[in-house]
Amino acid sequence: MASVRIREAQEGDCGHILRLIRELAEYEKLSDQVKISEEALRADGFGENPFYHCLVAEILAPGEPQEPCVVGYGLYCFVYSTWKGRAIYLEDIYVMPAYRGQGIGSKIIKKVAEVALDQGCSQFRLAVLDWNKGAMDLYKALGAQDLTEAEGWHSFCFHREALRELAGR
Amino acid sequence: MASVRIREAQEGDCGHILRLIRELAEYEKLSDQVKISEEALRADGFGENPFYHCLVAEILAPGEPQEPCVVGYGLYCFVYSTWKGRAIYLEDIYVMPAYRGQGIGSKIIKKVAEVALDQGCSQFRLAVLDWNKGAMDLYKALGAQDLTEAEGWHSFCFHREALRELAGR
Repeated sequence: MASVRIREAQEGDCGHILRLIRELAEYEKLSDQVKISEEALRADGFGENPFYHCLVAEILAPGEPQEPCVVGYGLYCFVYSTWKGRAIYLEDIYVMPAYRGQGIGSKIIKKVAEVALDQGCSQFRLAVLDWNKGAMDLYKALGAQDLTEAEGWHSFCFHREALRELAGR
Repeated sequence: MASVRIREAQEGDCGHILRLIRELAEYEKLSDQVKISEEALRADGFGENPFYHCLVAEILAPGEPQEPCVVGYGLYCFVYSTWKGRAIYLEDIYVMPAYRGQGIGSKIIKKVAEVALDQGCSQFRLAVLDWNKGAMDLYKALGAQDLTEAEGWHSFCFHREALRELAGR
């Protein structure tokens, strides 16, 4: 049986990560919004002050000569709660459809939780689309609270044009 | 007339920031959730790899001998969109009630937008409670999109106990 390994992404994984980012956006029916490039992923994640961190899940079939195959990722940032202190924010988590049902997503989530505790975080945040019932149910079953439902939090975003308008540029 | 200045917070501002964090949580009716200390704010925001950045608004009345008075703050982190790249997340923004109506909140928001553009960000995210109609209307008027309303995003959080459970600790 093939074995799964969850490890920190290296710069050389950026091509695989980009492929999976695009697959995830297609699944979310929002693929027209993906503007990121492999170059940006390399520059932003592997410089001196990285803007993100990433875990990848790779499959290695024993006895097979191929390279390990990257089949999932979890991309996160460190954020801050003014109530509770250090926190981790999981921007994306994705496992290729052919590799689901083997617990790879849960392994990525557990690894993020380990990183969070190692870094002194007391919250692990993420955002989920409300039609993605499978994901919502999974996170709730794992112990997460739906803050939008429980407390009424809405996510707002100023996109590029609004941002320029705000800054008067 | 008193003048307002928006500037980067210094370590010595942490006492003021904590006072304002507590006031904001009272306004949000969630003050029992505030567990942060001044020591944690100092350690987490002013070390080598800060977990957050902060702007403060201070008032200086001309001719008065008092020190400038910190009356508002905006606390933010850098995050990452796998679709659009670098992004900024405004965790908190607050202005003391006695100093509202002077555009101090808008000045803080504009300054965050400037920092975002200076750092190559193309998104400026924040979260708002749905009963806080004044804030929601303001952010919309300034050009922000309500992603929970438009796309169905829900904010989830694993709190400390769930985090430990996940990590098996």
